[in-house]
Amino acid sequence: MDVDVVQDALDANDLAKAQEWLNRHAPHEVAAELQRLDPVPTAVAFRLLDKDQALEVFEELDPHSQQTILEGLRDEAFYDLVESLEPDDRARVVQEAPAKIAHRVLAGLSPAERQMTAALLGYPEGSVGRYMTPEMVVLRRGLTAAAALDVVRAEGRDAETIYVLPLVDDHRRLVGVTTLRELVLSAADTVVDMISEEAPRAQATDDAESAARLMQEANLLALIVVDSEERVVGLLTIDDAVELIEAADTEDVARQAGASPLRGHYLTASVLQVARSRATWLLLLLVAATLTVNVLQYFEDTLARVTALALFVPLLIGTGGNAGAQSATAVVRALAVGEVRGRDVFRVVWRESRVGLGLGLVLAVLALAIGALLVEWRVAATLAGSLVAICVWASVVGAVMPLLARRLGIDPAVISAPLVTTLVDATGLIIYFTMAHLILPL
Amino acid sequence: MDVDVVQDALDANDLAKAQEWLNRHAPHEVAAELQRLDPVPTAVAFRLLDKDQALEVFEELDPHSQQTILEGLRDEAFYDLVESLEPDDRARVVQEAPAKIAHRVLAGLSPAERQMTAALLGYPEGSVGRYMTPEMVVLRRGLTAAAALDVVRAEGRDAETIYVLPLVDDHRRLVGVTTLRELVLSAADTVVDMISEEAPRAQATDDAESAARLMQEANLLALIVVDSEERVVGLLTIDDAVELIEAADTEDVARQAGASPLRGHYLTASVLQVARSRATWLLLLLVAATLTVNVLQYFEDTLARVTALALFVPLLIGTGGNAGAQSATAVVRALAVGEVRGRDVFRVVWRESRVGLGLGLVLAVLALAIGALLVEWRVAATLAGSLVAICVWASVVGAVMPLLARRLGIDPAVISAPLVTTLVDATGLIIYFTMAHLILPL
Repeated sequence: MDVDVVQDALDANDLAKAQEWLNRHAPHEVAAELQRLDPVPTAVAFRLLDKDQALEVFEELDPHSQQTILEGLRDEAFYDLVESLEPDDRARVVQEAPAKIAHRVLAGLSPAERQMTAALLGYPEGSVGRYMTPEMVVLRRGLTAAAALDVVRAEGRDAETIYVLPLVDDHRRLVGVTTLRELVLSAADTVVDMISEEAPRAQATDDAESAARLMQEANLLALIVVDSEERVVGLLTIDDAVELIEAADTEDVARQAGASPLRGHYLTASVLQVARSRATWLLLLLVAATLTVNVLQYFEDTLARVTALALFVPLLIGTGGNAGAQSATAVVRALAVGEVRGRDVFRVVWRESRVGLGLGLVLAVLALAIGALLVEWRVAATLAGSLVAICVWASVVGAVMPLLARRLGIDPAVISAPLVTTLVDATGLIIYFTMAHLILPL
Repeated sequence: MDVDVVQDALDANDLAKAQEWLNRHAPHEVAAELQRLDPVPTAVAFRLLDKDQALEVFEELDPHSQQTILEGLRDEAFYDLVESLEPDDRARVVQEAPAKIAHRVLAGLSPAERQMTAALLGYPEGSVGRYMTPEMVVLRRGLTAAAALDVVRAEGRDAETIYVLPLVDDHRRLVGVTTLRELVLSAADTVVDMISEEAPRAQATDDAESAARLMQEANLLALIVVDSEERVVGLLTIDDAVELIEAADTEDVARQAGASPLRGHYLTASVLQVARSRATWLLLLLVAATLTVNVLQYFEDTLARVTALALFVPLLIGTGGNAGAQSATAVVRALAVGEVRGRDVFRVVWRESRVGLGLGLVLAVLALAIGALLVEWRVAATLAGSLVAICVWASVVGAVMPLLARRLGIDPAVISAPLVTTLVDATGLIIYFTMAHLILPL
C-alpha cells in the first residue's frame, strides 16, 4: 500500500470512502496511515472509525498522535475511549500527556480503574512497572490442572494474556510459572506444581529495556513482574517488550548520528522539533571542530611552505573519521545486544588495532598510487604513512570511547559517529603534520 | 554477571566448577558465555552440558558458534543433537554450514525428519519458508471448541506453539484463525468458526524480515504461512520474528557506518573477517574522497592568496558531514520502521531544507563569533555564509539519497553516514570557495 488513500479521500471530501477504508483495514495499518496525517485530518479520520476499531487503532498509535486525538474529542467520546483502554496503555497516555489531559483522563475513570492506573504511574519512568499489565491470571500452588483451568476460565476474559500463568504461595509470592500449553496438555489431575518451572522475573522498578532484552534472549511470551517482596504484581507481555526494544533501537540510531531521539513520527513532528533534536550536537561538534582550526594555525608555516599538503587534508581526516565511525558503531551495537561488556577493553583494543593496521596498509597502497600521480613522492609518502597511523588510531579510539562511556555509566550510544569523527579530525591533523616533518625537508 | 566464570574455570582446569555453572544457568545465559569463547574452549564447555541443556543451549547459539560445536562433535553425539533440533532450527544449521557438515546433518536424519528439513530448505534464502515451523496444530472448520481442544491435546506435544491455531477447509486452505485462549474461554459447544477471525498470512516465499515487521505491528504471536494455493504450510513464531528483526537492525546499523554486516559474534569473528567487512567501503570512500583533492587543486590559487581559508576547511566539511549524517540516519530509520515511504520525496525535501536552514543560521552566528576572533571579518563572513548553504544542502542530500535508493530497489541502509559525508565534503568545498569569490576581493 504505497498510496495515501485516506489523505486523498479526505482531500476530496469523500468521507464515505475514507470511512470504508478505515474500518476495513487492520488496526495497525489504520494507525500507520493516521500517523502520517496532520492534526486536523487525523482527528476527522479518527471520528470515522467504528467504536471497537477506534479503540484498537488508538492503542497502536504513538503517544504524540494519541494526544492529538484526545485533544480533539468531546467529553463523552473521550471518557468512553479512556475507560476502555488497558490499564498499562492508559498509564502511558497519562504519562505522556500534558497535565490538563492527564487530569481529565484520571478524573473520568471509575474508582477501580483509577486505582490500577495510578498504581502503574507510581513506578519510575522507564521502569518495568510502567509497561506491565496488572491484568493476568495468577494460580495458587497445589491446584490440579483441571482446577487451574477453571480459574483461567473464570478470570481469563479480563486478562491481557492467559498463556503465562504465575504460581504463587499463600502470600502471593512467586514460586514458579506454568503455561496454558502445559495445563491443556497435562492430565486433569496433575498438580500444577509438577508442570511448573523456575520463573524468570523482573522487579517492577527494574529498567524496562533490559527486561525486554532478557525476554527476547530467553524467548519468553511474558515476563513475571514482582515487587520488592517477591509478590507478583504484573506481566510484561512480548508485544510491549518488542515495542520497547524497537523504541530503544530507534533512539540508539538517532544518537549514533549525533541527534537526540525524536519523540513522535518523522513526518508529523514539527520542523522546530526536528531541528532542536539535532542542534545541540551540531553546536557542540562545531565548537570541538575549532580544535582543527587551532592545529592548522599551529602548522600554518608548514602549510605555506608545502601547499600540496593542504590538498589531502579533507581526504585524510575523512578516512580517519570513517574508520572511527565503523569501529564505534560496531562496538556500540555489540554493547547493546550484549556481545561485549565493559571489562572487555583490552581485548577490544587489541582486536581493533590489528584491524586498523590491516585497513591502513591497504588504504596506504591505494593512496600512494593516487598521490604519486598528483604530487611529488615525498608528499605521497607522507599521506600513505599518515593513513596507516590514522586508521589504527581511529579504530582504537572509536572502539574505546563507547566502552569508557559504559564504564562511566553513560549510555554508549551517545558516542556518535560524528563525535568520534570530530575528535579524530584534530588528532589526525597532528599525525599528518608530524609525519610531514619526519619525511619532508622542513 | 560481568565475570567470565566459564573462561576462568576452564583456564584453571576446574571442569567441575565450569560444569556446575553451565548446567545451573538458563540456556540463553550459557549461550551468551559460550559465544565469547575461542573454538577449543567452546567445544570443551559444550561437552560438559547435560543432554537437555545442550539442546536448548545449541538452539540459542548464533550460526557461527553452532558450526564450531558441530565440527567438534563425534558421530553419535552429533546425530543425537541434530535429530533433536526443531525442523526450522535444523534447516538453518544446514543452510549456514559448509557443505561437508550440511551433508552429514542430512544423512543422519530419519526419513521423516529429513523430508521436513529438505522442504524448508526448498524455499529461497531469506524467505519466510526458511524460518517457519511446520510443526503446528491445524483445525478443520466446523469443529466444536471441545472437539478442537481434543485435537490440540492429541497433536500439541509435537507442535512448536499451540496458541495460534489456523482454521482450514477440506483442502487445507486457510479460512481463518483462532487461538487457544478463545478455545479455552468459550463454551464447549461453540463452533470454532464462530470464534475465528480473518487470518493475517504470509506466503512462504515472502521476505522474512517484512513478515516479521508485520507481526510486530499487528502484535501477532505467530503468523500463518501459506503456499501459493493458500494451503497452510507453517507458522512463523514471535521468537523467530524478534530474532529476524534484531538481525536486520544489526545489519542496518553496520551498513549505516559504512561496513558490511559481520556474520557472527564481534569478539570471536577473526580480525580478517572484521577488516574485510569494513575494507570495501573504506576503499570506495577513499576513491570518492579524491574528489576533494580535485576541488582543492582547482581552487589552489585562491587558497594560496588567502591562506586563512584553509584553516576552516576541516571544520566546515565536518559540520556538513554531521548535518548530512543526521538527516540520512533519520530517514533511513523512518523508512525501516515504515514511517516514510518512497513517494514522500517532496515532503521530505521541504522538511529538511527548512530544518537545514534553521540549523545553518544558528551555526553561522556561532561561527561568525569564532571566526572574527581569529581572522579578518570577510573570511569569517565567508565561513558563516557557507555554513548556512552547506547545512541546507547536506540535510537535503542526506535525506534524499536513502529515498532514491529505495525507489531504485536498493536497501536504503547502504546510504551510510560515511557515504553522505564524503559526498557532502566535495560539494561543500565548492560552496565554500564560490562563497569566498563572492565575498572576498579575489
